[in-house]
Parts: sequence; C-alpha cells; structure tokens
Amino acid sequence: MNKLLIVGSVAFDAIETPFGKTDKILGGAAPYIGLSASFFNLQSAIVSVVGDDFPQEYLDLLTARNIDISGLEVVKGGKTFFWSGLYHNDLNSRDTLATELNVLGDFQPKVPQNFKNADVVMLGNLHPLVQSSVLDQMESKPKLVVLDTMNFWMDCALPELLDVMKRIDVITINDEEARQLSGEYSLVKAAAKIRKMGPEYVVIKKGEHGALLFHKKEVFFAPALPLEEVFDPTGAGDTFAGGFAGFITQSENISFENMKNAVIYGSNLASFSVEKFGTERMVDLDKEEVVSRLQQFKSLTQFDIEL
Amino acid sequence: MNKLLIVGSVAFDAIETPFGKTDKILGGAAPYIGLSASFFNLQSAIVSVVGDDFPQEYLDLLTARNIDISGLEVVKGGKTFFWSGLYHNDLNSRDTLATELNVLGDFQPKVPQNFKNADVVMLGNLHPLVQSSVLDQMESKPKLVVLDTMNFWMDCALPELLDVMKRIDVITINDEEARQLSGEYSLVKAAAKIRKMGPEYVVIKKGEHGALLFHKKEVFFAPALPLEEVFDPTGAGDTFAGGFAGFITQSENISFENMKNAVIYGSNLASFSVEKFGTERMVDLDKEEVVSRLQQFKSLTQFDIEL
Repeated sequence: MNKLLIVGSVAFDAIETPFGKTDKILGGAAPYIGLSASFFNLQSAIVSVVGDDFPQEYLDLLTARNIDISGLEVVKGGKTFFWSGLYHNDLNSRDTLATELNVLGDFQPKVPQNFKNADVVMLGNLHPLVQSSVLDQMESKPKLVVLDTMNFWMDCALPELLDVMKRIDVITINDEEARQLSGEYSLVKAAAKIRKMGPEYVVIKKGEHGALLFHKKEVFFAPALPLEEVFDPTGAGDTFAGGFAGFITQSENISFENMKNAVIYGSNLASFSVEKFGTERMVDLDKEEVVSRLQQFKSLTQFDIEL
Repeated sequence: MNKLLIVGSVAFDAIETPFGKTDKILGGAAPYIGLSASFFNLQSAIVSVVGDDFPQEYLDLLTARNIDISGLEVVKGGKTFFWSGLYHNDLNSRDTLATELNVLGDFQPKVPQNFKNADVVMLGNLHPLVQSSVLDQMESKPKLVVLDTMNFWMDCALPELLDVMKRIDVITINDEEARQLSGEYSLVKAAAKIRKMGPEYVVIKKGEHGALLFHKKEVFFAPALPLEEVFDPTGAGDTFAGGFAGFITQSENISFENMKNAVIYGSNLASFSVEKFGTERMVDLDKEEVVSRLQQFKSLTQFDIEL
C-alpha cells in the first residue's frame, strides 16, 4: 500500500451556524484530511501536536480509520489549539470568535521514521516553516507534494510561504486567496502566476461554486454538488484536499487526467462533510455512499453533444 | 425550419467598464437573444419597439442574421429605450446610471402573423404583461415557452409575473433573483419552489460560476468557461437564453437530456459575448469558433472515473 503523510493542525473547534452550535469538538486540518483520505486504499500518518487535554476518544477515532498517530505529539500540561467561529446566515462568511494557538505556537513537527519515504505528502494549512520542516525530514523524494494554505500566512509569513511553494507540486487555495497571492482578479491569470511560484498544478477552491484545476494551458472544473442544506462548512476545504491526496496516493498516477478524478473525489467527499457538524458525517460515512454520489457527479456534468 | 419567436427590449446602451466606455451602442435583450440564436438552423423574429432615432445600420445587422423584424415597431417621433451602466472593478456588480424607458413605456407587442405558430417562444426580460400579451396572440400552442425576468419585476409587478409564470415551461433567472422569488437560500430548495409556480424547468444563472438546470429531482450543471479577461458582461444572460432557446428550436427535442446540451450551448455562446463590448463579439463570431469552444467545454468537465 502506498503511504500518505499528512501534516496539519489538530484542534478543538466550537462552531455556531444558523442551525445550532457545538461545544469543543474535534477539528483542525489534519483530522479532516485524514478521515477523508481514509476512504482510499493507503497507509496514512498524521504529524501534529495536541495538549494532554485532548481526549482519548478522538485519538481512537483516528486510529480506527487506520491513521498512524505516532507523529502526533502530546504535550504534557499543554492545551490543544482552539478555534471558534460563527457562520452568517448564508454560510459563505464567518467571524472568527477565538483563536488560541496553545501548543501549536511552538510546534516542531517530527515525521515518523516509517513515513520518511511516503509516496505523497499533504501539507495542510499551518505555518509555512512547519510545512518546510516536514519536507526537510523526508529521506526520499515524494512522488507528489500537495500544499494547502490560507490568507493568514500571506499576510504574516509571505517569504516563508513563497519558499515552501518552490518545493511543492500542487497548491490548493481558495479563490480570494488566489487573487491575493497573485494580484490578479481573473482566476485564469491568477493560476498562471501562481504556477510560476512553484507548483505545476493549481487547484482553486470556490466553495459552493466548485473547484478549478489548472496545469499549463489546461483547466478542469469539478462542480460542488448542489445541496438542499449546508449544515456546517467547517473543514470542507480540508476534506476536499484529503480526498484529492488520498485518491492520488491510492492510484499512483499523477497525470493531469487522473488529477481530474482526484478533484472530483475531493468535491464528492467535501459534499458529505458539510452535511453535519464538524467531522460527524465523515465518521459515519461508508464507501457505498461515496460511490453512489460519484454517480450523481457524473449526471451533474456529463453531456453528449456530438461535435 | 422551426420557428423561434423572441420578445424583449431593443435599446441603446452606454457602458463603462474598467477597460473602457462606449457611446450609445446596440443593446437590449432581444438583439442579444436573436444574435445568439442565429447560430442555429431556424427562423426567428423579434417583437419589440424602437424610436425613429434607431439607426438603419442596427436593423441591417439583425436582418443580416436572418432575423425577421416585421414585429419590431418603429415609433415616429419616439425615442429608443436607453440604459447606461457602470461596472465595478470585479465586473460582478454594476451601478445603473440611467434608465429611460421612452417608447418601451407603453409598448403593445404585435406578433407577426407568420410567427403566431412559432415552435418556441423566448420571452426576454420585459414587463410580465407584455410577456403575457405575446402568449395571448399565439394561434397554436408552442412546443416550449422560455421566460427570462429580473428582480425589478419581482419588486413592482409580482402578481403579473406569477401569472405569466403559470404559462411557461422554462424560466431563466439569476441566483439572487431565484432566492428573492422563492425566499430560499439553497438553490436546490429555491428551484423546487419556483417549479411549483409553473415552469417544469428552472435554469439558475450564476454568471462566472456557471448555470444550474433543475427538473423534478434532477439537476445538471453547465460551467462558465474560465476566461483570462471578461471585457463586458452586458447581455451575457440574454446571450445564454438565446443559445438555450435556439438550440432547442433547432433540435425539436425538449427532453431533460437535450436541455443539458442547450445550457452548454447557452454557456458557450455567453462566453464569447463577454469578450468585447456590447454585441460586437457576437457579430464577428463564426460557427467554427463556436464548435471549437464546445470541445473546451467537454475537456473542462468530462472525467472518466470507473464506478
């Protein structure tokens, strides 16, 4: 089985949406990525950090999905990263109510020895220096390195972000962030500029409007599934990235054609993630549901105009 | 050849975008719809009104595309409808600088005798009473009636709009208008509510984010082509509607499967329309370019995950 190495935050999230609110529940990029990637045939490991306030129950939830957590450091006396957000009525915008970095503040990632030869590395949203440090520890060159990031790092760690971008193959980023990073409004132009910063492939996530995959002069579009109700968008982008990286890891094929399938899988898994609070839906999801919804993605976009 | 009857405004537009500005140029829903539909094998006619300030050159431009203008009334001493708009930097929002109804204010549409048996009727954006009056004049039931409208009529002629909606098969409407009309934020729920108001098919236009086609429990998504530059979005929705109605008129097939192709054609033609000011691009466009871009739409969305 191929190996997928995941780095990203592990967090407590407190979320309020128009549909309700949660206490501290399992959150952070790494669990969303890991759960999403667990729908593929692969070995995965998470590199991250939590405090000793982190419940065994959440660790069990990850290991039950065959996710190696030997690289998940538990800091004695430390507190786990905490994020709290309030979504507005349209669920497209949110206010951050609290961000307590806690043990994430001086996190030094340690890649487990048996994942230093991982086939695919998924660098979830974290400080670019942490992302770089993970790449420094690899003993063989990964077939593919995927990086997710956000506007926060563009604002306060841009040189470090630009450095790590030179070492990656794929970046996943949302539309506003792509515009900020490139200074271009047109996403076609933005993707071209971002490709010059390093990654051969640029995935621009547009939330309910789907995702675009750019490579050289080519472009592919994966729609978001139109849903009756979006319950909680938290983690949708990470779930997308986990599906993308998981499918590539399993298939070992890094062609543009196969990446089209990967973004469809990412969009598919993200469409489930938003149906319940936090990681809840990803935990009760089974493979048959995933396959069945892929059929919906086909119906949604396939047409047969003869040319 | 099948017949397509088009009703809609014919106007002078003065447009300012970040790329430049125009004096009074040819505008209005009907010319955009007519030019777009002229790429299909059909007979079309425009029912509308202008003043005698309307230049022969623009009339010639329409008849050169085989558009019957015997139903285009010219009011002696009257002034043509005038609209002026200023687009913001992102081209997604605009300010209306002037709306002078002029001869459109008391327009009584007159359907030419030889189009009272039209196969398809495209009711472009106008007062719902004008749209109803056109349907009243038909001597045989059209195979398909398509209606386009906007928030303005929801605000000031809602009962009349709801009346005409009971007599149509397809409505094309943008996302914000669908939300306003239905009171639902989810477009899936909005479409279901709008279908209960009359039309079997609901097309929700999302501009640069593509268009959704709803019918019963089914949904299809046509992407917008990602473009390096959008020059002038004026008329994109009308061009989309013209491509949709034109393709259906030519193909005589009103199944959901065929409507998928119709929204792809609509999206395809709209992607050209925005490349230049006003109708300029539609006038110099040729069929080979249209067919070639359809291939881009296929590459953009077709994938081959085996299930």
